[in-house]
Formats: sequence, structure tokens, C-alpha cells
Amino acid sequence: MMQRVGLIGLGTMGGPMAQNLVKKGYPVTVFNRTAAKAEPLARLGAAVASSPAEVARASDVVITMLTADAAVLEVILGPGGVREGLQPGKVVVDASTVSPDTSRRLATALAELGVEFLDAPVTGSEPQAIAGQLTFMVGGKREVFDRVQPLLLAMGKQAFYMGDSGAGSQTKLANNTLAAINLLAFAEALVLATKAGVDPQVFLQVVASGGARSGMAENKGPKVLARDFRPQFMTALMHKDLTLANRMAESLGYPHPMLDLAKNLLQAAIADGWGEEDSCAVVKCYERWAGLEVIPQAQA
Amino acid sequence: MMQRVGLIGLGTMGGPMAQNLVKKGYPVTVFNRTAAKAEPLARLGAAVASSPAEVARASDVVITMLTADAAVLEVILGPGGVREGLQPGKVVVDASTVSPDTSRRLATALAELGVEFLDAPVTGSEPQAIAGQLTFMVGGKREVFDRVQPLLLAMGKQAFYMGDSGAGSQTKLANNTLAAINLLAFAEALVLATKAGVDPQVFLQVVASGGARSGMAENKGPKVLARDFRPQFMTALMHKDLTLANRMAESLGYPHPMLDLAKNLLQAAIADGWGEEDSCAVVKCYERWAGLEVIPQAQA
Amino acid sequence: MMQRVGLIGLGTMGGPMAQNLVKKGYPVTVFNRTAAKAEPLARLGAAVASSPAEVARASDVVITMLTADAAVLEVILGPGGVREGLQPGKVVVDASTVSPDTSRRLATALAELGVEFLDAPVTGSEPQAIAGQLTFMVGGKREVFDRVQPLLLAMGKQAFYMGDSGAGSQTKLANNTLAAINLLAFAEALVLATKAGVDPQVFLQVVASGGARSGMAENKGPKVLARDFRPQFMTALMHKDLTLANRMAESLGYPHPMLDLAKNLLQAAIADGWGEEDSCAVVKCYERWAGLEVIPQAQA
Amino acid sequence: MMQRVGLIGLGTMGGPMAQNLVKKGYPVTVFNRTAAKAEPLARLGAAVASSPAEVARASDVVITMLTADAAVLEVILGPGGVREGLQPGKVVVDASTVSPDTSRRLATALAELGVEFLDAPVTGSEPQAIAGQLTFMVGGKREVFDRVQPLLLAMGKQAFYMGDSGAGSQTKLANNTLAAINLLAFAEALVLATKAGVDPQVFLQVVASGGARSGMAENKGPKVLARDFRPQFMTALMHKDLTLANRMAESLGYPHPMLDLAKNLLQAAIADGWGEEDSCAVVKCYERWAGLEVIPQAQA
Repeated sequence: MMQRVGLIGLGTMGGPMAQNLVKKGYPVTVFNRTAAKAEPLARLGAAVASSPAEVARASDVVITMLTADAAVLEVILGPGGVREGLQPGKVVVDASTVSPDTSRRLATALAELGVEFLDAPVTGSEPQAIAGQLTFMVGGKREVFDRVQPLLLAMGKQAFYMGDSGAGSQTKLANNTLAAINLLAFAEALVLATKAGVDPQVFLQVVASGGARSGMAENKGPKVLARDFRPQFMTALMHKDLTLANRMAESLGYPHPMLDLAKNLLQAAIADGWGEEDSCAVVKCYERWAGLEVIPQAQA
Repeated sequence: MMQRVGLIGLGTMGGPMAQNLVKKGYPVTVFNRTAAKAEPLARLGAAVASSPAEVARASDVVITMLTADAAVLEVILGPGGVREGLQPGKVVVDASTVSPDTSRRLATALAELGVEFLDAPVTGSEPQAIAGQLTFMVGGKREVFDRVQPLLLAMGKQAFYMGDSGAGSQTKLANNTLAAINLLAFAEALVLATKAGVDPQVFLQVVASGGARSGMAENKGPKVLARDFRPQFMTALMHKDLTLANRMAESLGYPHPMLDLAKNLLQAAIADGWGEEDSCAVVKCYERWAGLEVIPQAQA
Repeated sequence: MMQRVGLIGLGTMGGPMAQNLVKKGYPVTVFNRTAAKAEPLARLGAAVASSPAEVARASDVVITMLTADAAVLEVILGPGGVREGLQPGKVVVDASTVSPDTSRRLATALAELGVEFLDAPVTGSEPQAIAGQLTFMVGGKREVFDRVQPLLLAMGKQAFYMGDSGAGSQTKLANNTLAAINLLAFAEALVLATKAGVDPQVFLQVVASGGARSGMAENKGPKVLARDFRPQFMTALMHKDLTLANRMAESLGYPHPMLDLAKNLLQAAIADGWGEEDSCAVVKCYERWAGLEVIPQAQA
Repeated sequence: MMQRVGLIGLGTMGGPMAQNLVKKGYPVTVFNRTAAKAEPLARLGAAVASSPAEVARASDVVITMLTADAAVLEVILGPGGVREGLQPGKVVVDASTVSPDTSRRLATALAELGVEFLDAPVTGSEPQAIAGQLTFMVGGKREVFDRVQPLLLAMGKQAFYMGDSGAGSQTKLANNTLAAINLLAFAEALVLATKAGVDPQVFLQVVASGGARSGMAENKGPKVLARDFRPQFMTALMHKDLTLANRMAESLGYPHPMLDLAKNLLQAAIADGWGEEDSCAVVKCYERWAGLEVIPQAQA
């Protein structure tokens, strides 16, 4: 018999995730603070609950997909929260990007109720969420991971077991640190080439053909050249992730100067007004410095 | 009739490049300061000259593949150099990584003799040189590029025309800046994950599966985990390239803080004794800081 | 009639501060977790209490001088803490270096009891504490500042009113950020000159004579040349202050790259084993990088 | 008998230096490319030469005070230059800020003529030049230093002998690196305090009273608060000095991340349009980032 699944947080990521669960035949109960976002799910056949606690009562596994540590703590441990509807044997899976400390705190709090907890953040953004092609990085007990893995694979292409509670969040922050620095590197190098007079379109081809290639150059290069800064992943969110990663690196006690410089450059992009745009808008800080009005468009 | 080709500089890169030319049927004349390195080429059928000038006399196109600006200037413009053996209509192609200023200076000096010059540095290291899979980035006149392109494709998989003299070198420096920062990003993020307790082997898989992926993570990750620091591209050479890129960025007058921080971290790696090792040895600076004796080996 | 004063935390700073109060004739009650540290004060005539609450009962003004946010919160708000011994009209003055958020939280918590709170961190280290030459930076109500100012001037040479609750802590963190970056600047420049072959002793004189002069060069230069790394202000504490300053700058939402780079370099010094030494030991990171065994001693 | 002195370069610094020499009774011959700048000196009694060579013929000691390496090389070694008017036993003193390599090159070139050379850059800006309060940092032979020291002290308050040729320039660059980083530290910390709500005027007093004090905070703080960005030392010149210092640090082979970050921030200030203003205008980059329209003036 299929597990009954609850999903709380129906934003850009959580909405498509819930839809994929419904489409794969899982009995799904959803909740979103702004109720209107639950309507598409209701039309697909999902039950709509009136509180996180009610979601928990109706589900064997509760998934949360929210934007920040405070929201996750409130939805799970706050009044009317998931905790109030839980019983021993149930599982809570947090797919949000939060600090490893928050993940461990939730695991400890729920263990007192005999409830299992997994931190299971994802890589991929809206297109991957819609396509069911997310990658999950999971911390917690391995047997619990094994139990919910089919559920995760209903929403994603891969699920990696990373270790004890918090290991999923740790992996996510290290991964996003790498992505963010790669993005800054791309922005800085693209402006270096363009300012020198190199055709940016050809530069992208050169980059793609050799050791300098990266997911960021591949994904963001065409967006930058097309001057398309509509958010896939907002500058402000990337900055938030680096803030969490900075806390993690500090607590581990080793120097992490690239991370911190990238964080400052994203902060500069936010100060310049690009916080709500896609993170690749950081290139506009460099363009302003370099006196490049815009990077010329290939087809224009 | 096939162009007669000269190749000067038979090191890690130039040696295999010359071999590929011979194998493709080009009449090849070679020169190397340390004569012993010419022997394998002689056995394959290449002529061995006693000076760069003699190479130039015997060739329609002269290719140089050397390690630094000073060596290129000496071999082409110095006593007994290529210039002394040139005649109008011949072409000199410098595949070394040098500053755009050096490229332009060579183009100007040779133009006075009616000789064409292309700056044509490559991406790829020893394995790509052996496999004939290099990528050339070329600056100079387009018709000269068109004329030597078949020759370049005898050594590489692609040749991009980038613009006027110097544009090849500019592209190369911007490309290597990107690769170097991506490498530092990978080193910093790998140690972040590993120090937190994440299995580095699984971390590599996570990285490869999403937006944080990069050529550097892909190429260097397995080397780091296998503790294999034999040089494909030495830390000292990567540092040298960033020094040239720093000059170029300075002359363009825009801030380039990631480049400069990466340069300093490579300098720290050299100070720690890793200058002659592969550039991925920079991870050992982070490991020392983090108190990680070694990143555990996958198979150990 | 003189105010009865309590002082909690008799370390390097708090001990001499309490002694100065006693010497100026204030009736003083002290408490320290490690009781032995109270003995010198008892011999001078101070009363020794058995808990923070007891200090509060015996005092009109309670001063805390502790090492971190958690300790301050525990001593004031925890069980047996200052709060339990307070009555309306009393004043609590925290001279510790803590985050502005902690200062504001304490002000709010004590206001509920009708008790006034000032955040009043100091500049100066052990010698200034002994000499009664500290400088206080004070946040809270101005009339409360006016009331306790004579008391502060019994321990210091100056007391600045900085604004509402938290403004003292904010000033302290901005001030220490400046001091820390100046120290790193000095370390980097001293090694630059010394590695070039300049006599460091003469370099100090040059620095002192012009626009590059700083309190850090003046205080730490002779210590470095004498290889005297005994702590006046430990590397680990300076790093802690920059961690707090980083939080503050993040919450204000502007880039602060010098602060963050300095923080990383202090972290490297801690990783190299200099956390418990004076902060000027960060010069040893640069010396190691530069291959300077030691900066030569003036008299050796 | 007093030495006959030549002074070439009558700008902001060289003009007052020449005036002080005349006032102290030295027979002075001057030259400036823009002849009008020589008129005030002529009125004071100086001879005006028509070329650097003519200055050299008329003088025992020739002082150059120019803005960049290229100008110094041209004036001394170029056609019509100082070299053409020299004879064995004469002394050339370069007070410009140039790279140590340029200093050594000049020393070598002039030694061939039996002429002594000192590199003798100064600290202090226009007010110190007028007041005869400069500090000289001198590289070259000690006996030559001893011979010209009285001359230097006619223009300055101090002259330090730093070592062999180049040591004066090395000291100057290390000193200016320190000053520049201290300035950036001050800008960053001032905006941190001001953005938090602290009165910047009181913040300056706090800084001046403790370990965070610096020549830069003292000199530039009041200028910033008065919004007086008229150049004492232009942002573009400070950036130029850090570019030379970066070259020097690179050649010494040790990491110098604070220097490089400061250089990038000054580059950002130039990009923002503050290159011709006083270097303290870098604070406006931070103010823009922080959304501080202006730092409020105390008295306004």
C-alpha cells in the first residue's frame, strides 16, 4: 500500500513536487499559508488541509518545502504545527535549504515523539522540479532513507544518502557554495573577455569546449547574453545560502575566503538592485564597473 | 601540396603536437633547446634543425609552443631566432600562453618582414595534446586563420577565430582565469563538505549531478581523492597565467577580486611547497587549515 | 552617597576594573565563577558574593565583564542570575563585547522589571584596565548614562554616549573591525618590507613618521620584532569579535569584504596554532608564506 | 660651500621642495615640462634651465620629482635627459614613487658614468612639502646618503637610510600599501558604524582614543564628514602605487591578499568616477552599497 504523503509549502518548488506525487498515484494532502496556491493541487485530486498539524494527521510521511530556517521551525514545531499531528512511526522530510543546526534540532525534537526526521534538500530549480528531475541529498538514519527513497524518486531522478542528521543540509550548502563561486567566476571572466573585445558568444563556446566549463557557464551564459534576468534562482536566495554556508564553515573552523568574497559580491549585486533577479544578474555589477553598457546580444 | 611545418618547443604539449602533424603526413622540422627531446620525432621521420632560424628556413608555417613570454620573444626575435629565417608570405603561429601585449608586439615586428602572425594558445593538457583533441583560440587576420586551420585541426578538435592580434591570448587568459577560480571553488567546497563529515566520493557524485558541476570538479576530483598530484598542469603555471590575466584586467581598468584572490591562494600553495605538483594540490592548503590529514581515499 | 557597585567577571579586564573602583572608594561586591580570582579583591576590601543574584541584591549598579554572549545571558538572565536580585531603579551595565542583538535583548528583558540597562564595552586591554585608562562606548538612555558616568570614569579616561540600546556594542564592533584590519595591514606590509630586505626596525620608524601610522603598528610592531607573542588580546578573541561584526554587517545589508578577508586570515592564524597568542601572531602566517624564518630581532 | 642643486618636476610636491631649497640658500636650477610652473621659482631667484641635461650641467646634485616610472626614465635616460649633462662625482636623487626595479636600473645606468644614484621617495603630501616636513626613505650607498642628507633635511624633517639601491622605493611601496589598507579599513568601518545609526563624529572620537586609531582615520575622517573630496592624494595615484606594490609582492613570491583586495576596491572607486578625487572618496562606494545618501555632517 502506498504511503500517504503530506506536502507543506506549495511555492515554485513545492507545487510541482506535490503534483508529481499525485501523478504517481500517492494519496497527497497539502497545505500552504496562502491558500490559493493549493487550488491547482485540489483540482488534481489532492486533499487540502487547514493547518500543518492536520496534514500530519492525514499522512505517513510529511514533506516540508519552505524558504528559510525560521519558517521551517515554525511550521514543524510552532502552534498548529506538524508536531501536533504526529504519532510514533511517522516520518518528517524537510526538503528546504536550512542550516545543519536547524536540521539536527528538528531531528532531536521529533525523536522525542518517536518520529523520524530526514533533512533532504535538493539541487535543481523550477524546471527540474516540474520534470521530476531533482536530486535529493539526505541526512538521517539509513533505514528511514531506504523507506522513503521511492517517494523521493517520484519527485527526482536521484537520492543520495549522505550520513547522519544534518549531512543532507551540509552537502547542500557545500554544493551551493561551489555553484555560487562558479557563477561569480563566470561573471568576472566573461566581462574580462568582453571588455577586451572578444565576442562573448564565441567565448561561451570556447569555455564549453574545455576545462573551464561549468554548469553555471552552461546554464547562465545564454541567459546573460539574451539579457534574460528572470529569476530561476534569485540573487537574494543565493546570498542567503552563502550566509548559511558561512556559518557552517565558521563552526568548522577553517578559512573560506572564496565563499566570503562571493557572498560580498552577491551583496553588492543586491545593493545595486538585482536581489529579486536571477543570480546571474551579478554580471551587471561587473559590467557597470567595466563601463560595458550591456554585453552585446548575439542576434541583435 | 601540404604546408611544410616547423615546430619549436617539444615539451609536454609541443612533443605530441609535432607527432600528430607527422602522423597526418605533414613535412615537419623541429627544434628543441634540449636536443634529446627531438629524438622521438626524428625516429618518426621529422627533420631536426639546429636553430629556430633553420626551422624557419625549412618551413612555410612555424609553430612555437613555449612556457613564457620571455622564451617566445627570444626564440622568435632573438639571435639565431625564427625571424632570421623568415621570408614574406610565411606564417608564424604562437601556441604558447603569453600576454596579449606580447602577441601584439610579435605581430607588429613580423609584419615589418611581410610575415603573418597568429596568437593561437590552446585549452587542454597532455592527454588532449596526445589525442589531437586540443582547442585553439586564434587572434590575427581571418584569412590567415583560414589558411592554417587545417593544420591546427591536425592537432586539435576545434579552432575558434577570436578577432585581431592578441584576441587569442585574451581569450586564453580569460578562460584560464575561469578554470582557476573554478578549481579553487572546488577545493574550498570539497574541504567544507569533508570537514563536516560528508563522504567526499559521494559529494563528487552530487556535484556532478547538478548546477555545481564543472570541468575542474570532474577532472580534478578523482585525482584529489586518489591523492594523485602528478602534474597535468602545474600550480606554478596556473599562478603564472593568473599573473598575466591580472595584468590584462588591470589594463582594462575594472575590478577583478575573484581572480586576485585565486592568485593569492595559488601563491600560498606554492609557498607550501606544491608549485611543481598539479594545480589541484591547492586543496592541501585547505586540508592543512582544516586539520584534515588527508581526504580519505575511495578505495583505501 | 556613593553608589554601591557590583562587578561580575574578574578576568584580565574585570579584575583591575574592580580594583580601581575599590581604590576610588566605592563599596564593591564581586563574583567570579572561579572563586580564587576574587581573593585579591577581598584583600582590598571588596565583599565577595556567592552568586550573581547576591551581587545584584547588594548593589545599586551591577557591572558584568565576561567573554561571550552566552556567558552574559546566563549570568544576567539564567538561574541564580543577576535578574533574580534586581529591584526597580537599579542599573545593569554590561562592559563585555557582545552582539548588538544581545544588548537589546537584555535591555528589553530588564525593562520589564523596571531596571535600566546600558551596553558599555571598552577599548583598551590589560594595561589600560590597570591604569584606569579605558574608554567606554555606551548605549541606552542618556539620563542613565549621565547617572553612571562618574562610576565609569573611575575605571576609564573617557565615556562616550553613542545612542540607544545596542549603540555601544555597535560602536565597539565597528571599532574592533578597524583595529583588526589595521593589524592585518601592518602584518602584510611588514613582511613585504622585510622580505624585500628592509630593516624592520627602521621600517617601523618610517611608518610611525607618516600617514601609514596606526595604533596597531605602534603597539604591535615592537612586540613582533621582540618575538613577544604573549597575549594582550588573543587571536581567537579578535576572530570572535570579527565574527560578531560580520553578523552585524550582514544584518545591515552592505558589502564588507575587508572585514571578511581579515576574519579569514585570523582563522588561518588560529589553524596555524596561534589562537591563544596575541593577535599580532598573525604575522607568523605571512612569515611562513614568505619563507622568513623569523623577522630579525633588533637587539639579537 | 653649498652644493648646487637641480630640481626637475615642479608639481604639487616638487614646487614647494624647490622653494624650500632656495629659501635655505641653496643655488637652485629648475626645469619643468610645462614652463609656466617654473615662474614662481624664477621670481624667488632660481635659475630656469631649458632641458634636464642643462639642469644636470649646472648642478652637483640633481633631484627628480615626477609621477611615474616612464617619466623618470625619460627625463634621466632619454634624449636631452639628465644623463647627457652629468659628469663623474655628481649625484642624482629620484624622489618619485617608482618600482624598485626602475630604481635599480637607474643606479646601474648612472654607475657606468661614475655618477651616484639614490632612490629617495617621500611620505607626506602637499602640506608637508610646503612646510618642509617630508620624510625621505633612501636607497643607495650610505656615504652618498650622508653627503646629501643636509640637502634632504632642507626639504624634510627626517631622512631614513634604508639600504642598497631600490630599498627606498621598496620602503615607500610597503608604507603606502599599509596606508591604503588602513584607509579602506576606515571607510568600511565608518560605514558600518554610520549605517548602524552611530553618530560618525562621535565614532571618530572613539577611534582616535584607542587601538583602532590611524593616520588615515585622523587625516581623512574630518574630510569625509565635511564631504571635502578635493585631492590631497588622488584615488588614481593610490591605485597606481598599489599596482607597483603588487608587482613587488609578486616578485617576492608571497601571498598579499589585503593589498590586492584594497587595489580592487580603489579600482571600483575609479570606476564609480572618483579617480581624480582624494583617495578618501572610496568611502562613497561603501555609502552607495549601504544606501547612505551621504554621511550626515555634524554641524550641518
